[in-house]
Amino acid sequence: MDLSKLLKPKSIAVIGANEKAGSFGNYSAINALQNGGNVNVYFVNLKSPEVLGHKTYPTIKDLPEVPDCILIATPAKTCAALLEEAGRSGVKAAIIEAAGFSEEGTEEGKRAEEELIRIARKYDMAVMGPNCIGFVNNIDKVKLWGMAGTDFDMNVRKTGVAFFAQSGTMSIHAVSCPYIDVSYVFSMGNSTMVMVEDVMEYVLEEPEVRMLAIYLEGVRDGRRFMNCLKRADELGKPVVIHAAGMSKKGAAAAASHTGNIASSRGVYQAVCEKYGAILVESIDEFLCATNVLATWLDRMPKGSGISAINGSGGENAVCADLSELYDVPLPDFEEGTITALKELLPGFANPRNPLDITAITSDVYTVMMNVLTTVGDDKNVDAVICSIASFAEPNEKDIEQAKVFGESLNERYARPMIDYVKKPGAVPVLCIPMTEDRRDAQWRRKLQEAGIPILANSLIGYKVLGKICKYIEYKKVVHTLENAVPEQKHGEDTVSLSEADSKKELYALDLPIPKQSVVKTKEELKKAVSGMKYPLVLKVSSADILHKTEAGGVQLGIEDGHQAEKAFDEIMENCRTYKPDAVIDGILVQEQAEPGVEMILGITSDAHFGPMLMAGMGGVFVEIFKDAAMYPCPLNKEEALRMLQGLKAYKLLKGYRGNSPCDIEALTDVMVKLSRYAKDHRDEIKEMDLNPVFVYPEGQGVSIIDALIIKYKDRKGGEQEENRKSDS
Amino acid sequence: MDLSKLLKPKSIAVIGANEKAGSFGNYSAINALQNGGNVNVYFVNLKSPEVLGHKTYPTIKDLPEVPDCILIATPAKTCAALLEEAGRSGVKAAIIEAAGFSEEGTEEGKRAEEELIRIARKYDMAVMGPNCIGFVNNIDKVKLWGMAGTDFDMNVRKTGVAFFAQSGTMSIHAVSCPYIDVSYVFSMGNSTMVMVEDVMEYVLEEPEVRMLAIYLEGVRDGRRFMNCLKRADELGKPVVIHAAGMSKKGAAAAASHTGNIASSRGVYQAVCEKYGAILVESIDEFLCATNVLATWLDRMPKGSGISAINGSGGENAVCADLSELYDVPLPDFEEGTITALKELLPGFANPRNPLDITAITSDVYTVMMNVLTTVGDDKNVDAVICSIASFAEPNEKDIEQAKVFGESLNERYARPMIDYVKKPGAVPVLCIPMTEDRRDAQWRRKLQEAGIPILANSLIGYKVLGKICKYIEYKKVVHTLENAVPEQKHGEDTVSLSEADSKKELYALDLPIPKQSVVKTKEELKKAVSGMKYPLVLKVSSADILHKTEAGGVQLGIEDGHQAEKAFDEIMENCRTYKPDAVIDGILVQEQAEPGVEMILGITSDAHFGPMLMAGMGGVFVEIFKDAAMYPCPLNKEEALRMLQGLKAYKLLKGYRGNSPCDIEALTDVMVKLSRYAKDHRDEIKEMDLNPVFVYPEGQGVSIIDALIIKYKDRKGGEQEENRKSDS
Repeated sequence: MDLSKLLKPKSIAVIGANEKAGSFGNYSAINALQNGGNVNVYFVNLKSPEVLGHKTYPTIKDLPEVPDCILIATPAKTCAALLEEAGRSGVKAAIIEAAGFSEEGTEEGKRAEEELIRIARKYDMAVMGPNCIGFVNNIDKVKLWGMAGTDFDMNVRKTGVAFFAQSGTMSIHAVSCPYIDVSYVFSMGNSTMVMVEDVMEYVLEEPEVRMLAIYLEGVRDGRRFMNCLKRADELGKPVVIHAAGMSKKGAAAAASHTGNIASSRGVYQAVCEKYGAILVESIDEFLCATNVLATWLDRMPKGSGISAINGSGGENAVCADLSELYDVPLPDFEEGTITALKELLPGFANPRNPLDITAITSDVYTVMMNVLTTVGDDKNVDAVICSIASFAEPNEKDIEQAKVFGESLNERYARPMIDYVKKPGAVPVLCIPMTEDRRDAQWRRKLQEAGIPILANSLIGYKVLGKICKYIEYKKVVHTLENAVPEQKHGEDTVSLSEADSKKELYALDLPIPKQSVVKTKEELKKAVSGMKYPLVLKVSSADILHKTEAGGVQLGIEDGHQAEKAFDEIMENCRTYKPDAVIDGILVQEQAEPGVEMILGITSDAHFGPMLMAGMGGVFVEIFKDAAMYPCPLNKEEALRMLQGLKAYKLLKGYRGNSPCDIEALTDVMVKLSRYAKDHRDEIKEMDLNPVFVYPEGQGVSIIDALIIKYKDRKGGEQEENRKSDS
Repeated sequence: MDLSKLLKPKSIAVIGANEKAGSFGNYSAINALQNGGNVNVYFVNLKSPEVLGHKTYPTIKDLPEVPDCILIATPAKTCAALLEEAGRSGVKAAIIEAAGFSEEGTEEGKRAEEELIRIARKYDMAVMGPNCIGFVNNIDKVKLWGMAGTDFDMNVRKTGVAFFAQSGTMSIHAVSCPYIDVSYVFSMGNSTMVMVEDVMEYVLEEPEVRMLAIYLEGVRDGRRFMNCLKRADELGKPVVIHAAGMSKKGAAAAASHTGNIASSRGVYQAVCEKYGAILVESIDEFLCATNVLATWLDRMPKGSGISAINGSGGENAVCADLSELYDVPLPDFEEGTITALKELLPGFANPRNPLDITAITSDVYTVMMNVLTTVGDDKNVDAVICSIASFAEPNEKDIEQAKVFGESLNERYARPMIDYVKKPGAVPVLCIPMTEDRRDAQWRRKLQEAGIPILANSLIGYKVLGKICKYIEYKKVVHTLENAVPEQKHGEDTVSLSEADSKKELYALDLPIPKQSVVKTKEELKKAVSGMKYPLVLKVSSADILHKTEAGGVQLGIEDGHQAEKAFDEIMENCRTYKPDAVIDGILVQEQAEPGVEMILGITSDAHFGPMLMAGMGGVFVEIFKDAAMYPCPLNKEEALRMLQGLKAYKLLKGYRGNSPCDIEALTDVMVKLSRYAKDHRDEIKEMDLNPVFVYPEGQGVSIIDALIIKYKDRKGGEQEENRKSDS
């Protein structure tokens, strides 16, 4: 499938072009005519000989040339036949706008979409949609867009962001946002033929695509998606992701919308953390984060030390509260800065970060320039929030007032900001207005050209800034941008290894497992224990006995050979009484580990993004407090450490209230190996559960006490595996 | 101090009225003239004989009558003399606008403000400010307001909310918000003479004040503040509180702004929880919550079951996500509703809550009326979010389009909503736009008149709605609206009771304490243990031995009288060796309680809001996970239960993984008694720490194992108290 004809067509045809206001066909025709002049535009309409003053052709076959791409703007039931006709005519790319396919959730809709897929495959066509609006290509100046959008003026709009949306409305929000530089806006619809991942791969390589902004209701191909994120990182192109359907009800809503099965919020967070993508949860956040990054592309702050300058004590206090709430670091000023500010500002201003410079009315330009320079020169400060003005669109009164003063308030405050950032050594500046409003387009643009973004109103603005600070810090750490998504899809059926076999696999990885052996007779037992260190544990090994303790199948603290033999007999007898028909493989005998700090490590395989490493402290910590970290496999030691540092229980690992610090070095070592194992066996391992893992004081290592490995049934690993229910 | 002359003056004088654009004196003069016609307005100006076409008087003494209230708009250094002159002339109320007093944090500023306070007291004057803008009284139509605000047209603006702000800018936000019905806006400034609490008490009783909206940087008188909240609850007047300075940096910023010491975020949350006030953290949230409540005053939803109707699948998914994120309950529809919706909506719409009705273009009115009626009739639904339209202010293109269609999009969607809510049995409706913008003032007003609020954009809108849902549920529970703020201010110095004496006090409250006695000799010991149940614990009782275990001063598991005597001797000897000069009161002998689930209960006294009950599970739960609940004393059993239910550890109390459920009944009983005790001894108790409290299975009660009571030194309780360091 070649996307060039779809994305960069030299000739296009709008099928169903018409003059009925508000129809797909009308919008599509109007937009198709708004191109850069390098595109031949044809209209196909069976009935009208002319549409919008342009000659039409009755069918695709009648066109004077085979168009590179067609836009089908006709109802759902006509689409298959038209696609077939186009395919036969040699057309290699199409967009289908109509809804009424798989997203309906009906058998009929599903069949109708399968028919489209069949035709697209047959003729090797790149088909976008169905259930979409199309796209705007502002690099090559092509609009294949079935919705209002004429106010998106490709003659003046600069290139920059590539927007992707599986939702039509979300793509309209992107097209309608007047102040973000845009290279592409894609409304992908059901994405069953041309997928988001296909288009991402293609456009990422274009130099005019400086960053990606993706509204997602689920991915089709997690591996390619993650590879795109990796490539974006390599190219230094930031990615903002608005993943919808992360809640239970949201997932149901998304499924019925574009037929996607969403991953959980936790998985999205983990993926974004690994790849440094910025994950948001509302449209305003989405546009705001995209705007900030797009504006800062060539002047990203060097660190996350933010200073804030406010013109009111109240707003200054709120700024401090919101910064704390959303993790915007406000470092203290250096001594020199404080001294300099005390000289610059009237006596009653209190020079600390955030800084209230109070309502200055005279000599605004000089005061602001001086304050910005002084604060920006502070070595703890990497960027300055300057929230003196809201840059709201002026109302009649503002316009009148501006006439009196000879300048508007927006101009008064914008000028020193713009002049400041031009100074050598200036740090980036941004504005976070306190209240919702429409912003002054003129000054927004001028500020933006100077690299100064206006964020969304307070709460959202600070939330986004907190995430961008995290993004800036992300860039300083080396991440493992490999992914471990299985090569093939696996069924739901699984097999579980026995404890002994699970541990055997881990042992082979050089992971710290107490010495163990499965013995069938007392003779074997004697031999086994001769090389072991007491005390020992004996446990029945049987796929038929799920609750070993209940069955009397476990004995702890065995201190010598005699006790071991006695335990062997008792366990055998208990288990035979408990379940006479149970097949008993033998008795697992192992060295009993010293108790340590209890951790749980695990692997779960997400349907889209593959194996995720899970880490948390044992017992109620994970279960009640949900204090667990998740991260896509594989990972390196630093990423493992960061996972642990993200736990509330990390304090306990670091040594709490006089307890010695735990061997975090050894623990992260296990985590890295486990994640590598999950990657290497990605088409085999469905789940792993290491619980508990005892962590000992620094230098004394860890010990994996119990382990369970669950494999896909369709890729059975070896002969020694047992058929157990996955809930064992 | 009588506030009538301040708040409802019949004659006012603006001191320093002038014509210099942008000055306090000019704004104040312009605003003073905008009154309802029942107010005599005088201008005082030494130099100009006329201001704004009105005759001026050189001094206050020269005025033809003694004005009820004066507005001093002159610089800080002139204020004391003017206030003195006014006082001597018999003026009983004044507003001082100038900054440059205690908020500066300088000795000079503090002294200047003390001078004002002295004069105000001398003449029994009600003085608002300094460092304020004044107020707007839209009930009696008086503007004593030193800032732009002429667009606040008292001839058309309806009465409703009383706004309070300690920050000038925040009060300007309130005055400038064009769509909220307002009775008063107060800019209170430093509030050292007339306090927020004074004004609250006064205006709460006015029928035109339907609710309160308060921007706070700290309270002066917590008791009166809480009493106002109680009174507001009695009168059914909602209260929205924006408490700034709740973060560490925010508190510092607030302190330097109005000289207030802020309580912590946790304390504010606890107070608001008790009194059902809505606590917000940004201006947009503040205005949004106020707007929703003001619009819904006469039609509050009966419950918190929210349904949402969206016009796009993407927005529907986001709506579900945001609802989950901010605790907006989206109940499932009844079967009947689903059936009815399936008939109403085209095949591909999936009738679940939230509901995507897709982009309807024809017959919008009928579809919306039918959907609203069907959804509103569902017995699980108490209110409907209808987010089909954003109600953004139309731009040029929208206005053009409206001409073509004969109606604007805003009108198209507003009409069915307005008609629906007029139907008998209709549930309240609200709009949450997805993106930030300026709203269409005309349609916002019309919707509002019908009782339909437009909230702030998505994230903030859902956040506010979640809080309002909680408020609606709050109203269903009986809360203990007494407060326990001490009658007097107490110093920092404290005395700690010994463990034995602390427990004695609790024992007197009929709280479950193991039997105990302090014995000085072995004879006393013999007598004491004769009535006790073994095993026993013996501990040294000495203010000089802080670390009892280290000193060898504790023995557990004493099984008989002989062991007890032996332990007595050993402890005495150990302690004499450990610290030869220690004064030993004796040995505390007590019954050793069975171990149970460990809880911590405590009391801490907030400087403003008095004793707070703290509850959490012992050990790392409180310390690492901060899983603790806080609530102002006193409280009832249901409030105590809700505190526990708010803990993550509540699951453990309810019986987790086969453990028996704990005796929550007995635990809440202790909590209630403790809170009562804290109230009854509010001028005595600084802090209490019951740690651990063992909770036993249902029906088996609780046992307080260790206790520490810390009292204010300035109100020593009795002879038996010891002088111990508070860190013992």
